[in-house]
Amino acid sequence: MKISSKLLNVIRQNGSFLIAGHINPEGDAIGSILALALGLKKIGKKDVYLLSRDGVPEILKFLPSAKLIKNSPPKKIYDVLMIVDCNVPERTGFKDLTGKNTVVIDHHIPPGDSDSAEFYRSLAASFIDPHAAASGVLIYKLLTALKIPIDKNIAVNLYTAILVDTGGFRYSNTSPESLQTACHLVEAGARPWSITKEIFENIPYKSMKLLGLSLATLDKKDGIAWMTTTADMFKKTGATSEDSEDFVDFPRKVKDIEAAAFFREDGDNTFKISLRSKGRVNVEKIAKSFGGGGHFAAAGCKVKGTLKEVQEKVFSAVRAAIKNAK
Amino acid sequence: MKISSKLLNVIRQNGSFLIAGHINPEGDAIGSILALALGLKKIGKKDVYLLSRDGVPEILKFLPSAKLIKNSPPKKIYDVLMIVDCNVPERTGFKDLTGKNTVVIDHHIPPGDSDSAEFYRSLAASFIDPHAAASGVLIYKLLTALKIPIDKNIAVNLYTAILVDTGGFRYSNTSPESLQTACHLVEAGARPWSITKEIFENIPYKSMKLLGLSLATLDKKDGIAWMTTTADMFKKTGATSEDSEDFVDFPRKVKDIEAAAFFREDGDNTFKISLRSKGRVNVEKIAKSFGGGGHFAAAGCKVKGTLKEVQEKVFSAVRAAIKNAK
Repeated sequence: MKISSKLLNVIRQNGSFLIAGHINPEGDAIGSILALALGLKKIGKKDVYLLSRDGVPEILKFLPSAKLIKNSPPKKIYDVLMIVDCNVPERTGFKDLTGKNTVVIDHHIPPGDSDSAEFYRSLAASFIDPHAAASGVLIYKLLTALKIPIDKNIAVNLYTAILVDTGGFRYSNTSPESLQTACHLVEAGARPWSITKEIFENIPYKSMKLLGLSLATLDKKDGIAWMTTTADMFKKTGATSEDSEDFVDFPRKVKDIEAAAFFREDGDNTFKISLRSKGRVNVEKIAKSFGGGGHFAAAGCKVKGTLKEVQEKVFSAVRAAIKNAK
Repeated sequence: MKISSKLLNVIRQNGSFLIAGHINPEGDAIGSILALALGLKKIGKKDVYLLSRDGVPEILKFLPSAKLIKNSPPKKIYDVLMIVDCNVPERTGFKDLTGKNTVVIDHHIPPGDSDSAEFYRSLAASFIDPHAAASGVLIYKLLTALKIPIDKNIAVNLYTAILVDTGGFRYSNTSPESLQTACHLVEAGARPWSITKEIFENIPYKSMKLLGLSLATLDKKDGIAWMTTTADMFKKTGATSEDSEDFVDFPRKVKDIEAAAFFREDGDNTFKISLRSKGRVNVEKIAKSFGGGGHFAAAGCKVKGTLKEVQEKVFSAVRAAIKNAK
């Protein structure tokens, strides 16, 4: 997708920039806004304000210039408000965020409601490409179009953005374009192993210990693999629910199953359940039947009861879904 | 690195080819020999024999044309013996393997002993580039130099080769060249997620169960994280040592450590130990002091004794190495 000359002109002709990512930011949001800010500074834009309502997650603090990011909005009005890796002001966590000109740079599909339509009409320019694997790819293209040289610090930020949003070049959005961009970023000085180590090889001991105790409960039956983290395990390891965020990946990786489940005891006779499909079972439907939600292949819900009661309810729903899918 | 016209001519001017990978093959060996064979067939070479002494590992059986691979050598002498992803006949598991012409295509550093020197003098041609991330990259270059179009089946084999040898584009050998090649292979029809699923998301239940029991033993002290798989765990799960091949990755991923160790009880009062460094400690030296070997950051050895005795010996050596590295 080509970048509009409108967007290039808005950047060239203005002096001050407020760049905002989305709430609960991950590597693509943080890496993209940092790279954009570093790039703009290279062409003499000294007045750049970087905003992330929820700051920078611990795991991303290694990113070059991460300290520039602020978590409260500026007092003054900037020439250009740049909304990055999301497509409406609400997603930045500050719905009244404004600028003399507003631009959106994003790879998500824009919302279709009438409020949003009005917002889109008000934009000075935009660069929205839902086919891009990450906003990092779009920022790379924008900097290149602005003839800004990609230095090592920019490259590390953009490589991280693409790495995170493609799940380490694994997900189906790993396009030729994303690999080509990654290639240029490595040429520019990004070091895949050193970035990978920060993102995927830097797990707190308590988190890995919690995984060990939880994975020991792994079980399989009727096409379902599952594991459980109990309140007692959290207590024993000092870990929190954040530490168990990707645990459902382990039962999901088991061969010859249709669905995976992860049960997390949240205390108060309640379990949080994460569900994953291997491709044929719609786990969103199952999660919805328990008042939860999600997507076809990844969904979640909360169910009250003892572990045994909760598992029986969930397994019975999954078994029915597997039967229907056949 | 450029391909010699000698190599191109040996291929163009001959009709029959014996292509051999190495013992204990992984994705790079199997993917590379398959892609080479499929490519040669496209330019009319009908007489191609594919050899892998240890066959095709279960996890790689999805590779296009994997069934073509045989595990015993042919009766006749072929025009060209092509040794791929290794650099001496011994590594194919058949030290007397021969051909009217022999070529080596590999990305490992060739051995420097006098026997090997003689073997290298006898070669009709070679394509050896230790800077290449995988032999798959070299095969891609060779097929391109031979003007063989890369179809989907070739692309899947080569993508898998590169994916496996770069640890999923994570290790430090993830060069611009390897990402560029991966980009072309995705353009040619390789699907990253479908290949990733086969390689990284298809773990036998018994193997995952063994991981669960083993990871529950995770411990950390003095900058070392470690875990243990006992003979009893193998018995309980029905898993074999093959199932525990990557287990050392888990202690290695623990934050704020210098070295990781994995202890595997091999029965007979013996433990197989895998050692990993986070970058400062030379674990090869430690492994060598116990009669083992490896590289700076990844090494292994066997030590006799009870688990407690073996761990004390190893930890004391690692502690000393950490102290020296400071």
